[in-house]
Amino acid sequence: MTETQGTQAAPSRRALIGWGGAGLALGAAAAGGAVAMARTGDDMDPAAAETGGAVEFHGAHQAGIATPVQDRLHFAAFDVKTEDRDAFVQMLKDWTDAARRMTAGKAVGEGAYGGLAEAPPDDTGEALGLKPSRLTLTIGFGPSLFDRFGLRDRRPEALVDLPQFPGDNLDRARTGGDLCVQACSDDPQVAVHAIRNLARIGFGKVAIRWSQLGFGKTSSTTPDAQTPRNLMGFKDGTRNIAGTETDRLKKFVWVGEDDGPDWMAGGSYLVARRIRMNIETWDRTSLQEQEDVFGRDKREGAPVGKAKEHDEPFLKAMKPDAHVRLAHPDSNNGITILRRGYSFTDGTDGLGRLDAGLFFLAYQRDVRKGFIPLQRRLSAHDALNEYIQHVGSAVFAVPPGVRDSGDWWGRTLFSKEA
Amino acid sequence: MTETQGTQAAPSRRALIGWGGAGLALGAAAAGGAVAMARTGDDMDPAAAETGGAVEFHGAHQAGIATPVQDRLHFAAFDVKTEDRDAFVQMLKDWTDAARRMTAGKAVGEGAYGGLAEAPPDDTGEALGLKPSRLTLTIGFGPSLFDRFGLRDRRPEALVDLPQFPGDNLDRARTGGDLCVQACSDDPQVAVHAIRNLARIGFGKVAIRWSQLGFGKTSSTTPDAQTPRNLMGFKDGTRNIAGTETDRLKKFVWVGEDDGPDWMAGGSYLVARRIRMNIETWDRTSLQEQEDVFGRDKREGAPVGKAKEHDEPFLKAMKPDAHVRLAHPDSNNGITILRRGYSFTDGTDGLGRLDAGLFFLAYQRDVRKGFIPLQRRLSAHDALNEYIQHVGSAVFAVPPGVRDSGDWWGRTLFSKEA
Repeated sequence: MTETQGTQAAPSRRALIGWGGAGLALGAAAAGGAVAMARTGDDMDPAAAETGGAVEFHGAHQAGIATPVQDRLHFAAFDVKTEDRDAFVQMLKDWTDAARRMTAGKAVGEGAYGGLAEAPPDDTGEALGLKPSRLTLTIGFGPSLFDRFGLRDRRPEALVDLPQFPGDNLDRARTGGDLCVQACSDDPQVAVHAIRNLARIGFGKVAIRWSQLGFGKTSSTTPDAQTPRNLMGFKDGTRNIAGTETDRLKKFVWVGEDDGPDWMAGGSYLVARRIRMNIETWDRTSLQEQEDVFGRDKREGAPVGKAKEHDEPFLKAMKPDAHVRLAHPDSNNGITILRRGYSFTDGTDGLGRLDAGLFFLAYQRDVRKGFIPLQRRLSAHDALNEYIQHVGSAVFAVPPGVRDSGDWWGRTLFSKEA
Repeated sequence: MTETQGTQAAPSRRALIGWGGAGLALGAAAAGGAVAMARTGDDMDPAAAETGGAVEFHGAHQAGIATPVQDRLHFAAFDVKTEDRDAFVQMLKDWTDAARRMTAGKAVGEGAYGGLAEAPPDDTGEALGLKPSRLTLTIGFGPSLFDRFGLRDRRPEALVDLPQFPGDNLDRARTGGDLCVQACSDDPQVAVHAIRNLARIGFGKVAIRWSQLGFGKTSSTTPDAQTPRNLMGFKDGTRNIAGTETDRLKKFVWVGEDDGPDWMAGGSYLVARRIRMNIETWDRTSLQEQEDVFGRDKREGAPVGKAKEHDEPFLKAMKPDAHVRLAHPDSNNGITILRRGYSFTDGTDGLGRLDAGLFFLAYQRDVRKGFIPLQRRLSAHDALNEYIQHVGSAVFAVPPGVRDSGDWWGRTLFSKEA
């Protein structure tokens, strides 16, 4: 089992289905793979780009965290609709089987299209013929899940409810959730297909509470890659944790054996925040003000007074309320989180303004030592607050990886309980 | 001037900006280009894929109609907020300049990042460093525009208000608009950037009425390409007009010299419909029913009784209410439209269901001989109606192309008027 997930050549869904689901030994071949390295500023291995590479589903950690960031996102939070624990566990097993197949580029169900004409297809079909496109599916459990199924004693201490931060303007319809699935892929149709099929399989047991499409990545988890720009036109998250930095991942992202509870070892905690940008106001702000707010130059993304994006920032050269200065680990006792955010635009707000911004996703070993202290500081002081508003929020315990073909999402939580 | 737009190698936005906006003679070089031919089921020329090719902005027709369909869409309808005709015309000229630059992969404004620190940047910046990505920008004028600026006498007869069709459930907030811009690109950030910058330039003169992100194309305008699947999992629009079919384009898409009014010669008419799919109901429908509804097999997309997607359908083998049968030109006195639709998903509807479907875009020479009779028939009889609902609607007169660097969007409409 490696710390990271590899990419490799994989046939199209079409071909796999044509072979009757026999498939390829993707898992075994990819288990030793290394993280794809960027060549041209993209988070994608050129060979994988050509073949629509599959990301290994099995591992000590779930894929979709340290995995090089894919281009597109479909994220869904679900509410549980059943009180039947066995039915819910069976759904998690069914989801795992479906996730294993979809991430390998296969349709859900062995007989998806050779099946019975009288029955609904096992797979909704819109990804048929598409490549795996580096699809990863990552599950998380929200605080409210632990009020169900006799799980109260198993809720991790680190899975705290997020406090109300200054300036929060949360929409209940975009906040919370008993569980979540993050689908990332280089093809949005593959990501949308995956969430939709999990929702379909979960019908009667869970229902989608909210979902979010992310049209473009804003973060990079690949060393030396160009950080993509957010909708403010800036490179933010330049000093993100790379998927190859085993030591920093262990220190800041993965729950350790001694952190507790046991079932979370190898897992992580996810904070999701829907951050609306006041695009129109920002666009009428001077370049100087914009650069002061971030503490970077807009063109290169270099910290104030420096030449290149990845140059070490000299924080004291920035204004005290500059975003980079306030968010930097040196200003926060070393706090570091792994960011995987995506830009979104969801039409207009009825006032002629785009409903657009950043769907912020961050993974960390402990929310109490990661997002919460960082956001307390930022929400109180960040110059950026004039131009953004947090309108959705959720936190999830992300369990460890599915180890092999007999394992399933949530086993460590559900199977060890008395 | 050619009938079609070419693709060609083009440097990145970064490089162009670095050269101080001197740029390349993109227009001249590309004017003689041919439509990119598909090789691998995609609507993209492999060489263009490597270089992030630019689509020529100038031509007898606007780009974005016969242009091979790009992967992503951002579409916006605007309302006019000024009564000052000169200000509006100046905005159209400014938009044209910006569109010319953005489609060539350049930032808006010569001094976008070398400009004054005290002023807002000329460009919002989030596409800086991205390639042209085959961006096309296509403008259209809605019926309500002709109630303004003394244009009443210039409204084309063919630009009728769409009738209410059976089953229409239109949301006023997603319907109509004085004008529209269709932005298509292989990179969603490039398309979103373009609409946002036009909205910014138009501030005070226009405001966005509604907008729609399309995450994946559902149509192909490239001969022999695989038709992408819609969110029902089917290939629909298989027999679309290809961008290379000059005769069919002339017959069905481009407004002719004798059609009138003069200012529309070389233009077209666009119908946009937001079609919500009842995804969850569809997914619980049997494969047989699904295939009966479309009149195609799901796996290959072949018409009933045939083997391949592009085989000539035998309509009488299908059920009388099958979608393909009802929509086929042979059932409609030869009516043919050019489709350029995109799949969308905009979160959830508050009832645990995805708000997803098809954003239908169709170009035609005359709406009265294209979409209206076709939709009258489909809305009354199509078996698909049980699973879809039209929730947004708009129609636009799409003027001819911008001929050269001195020309501008809407000149034929505004400059010839007394």
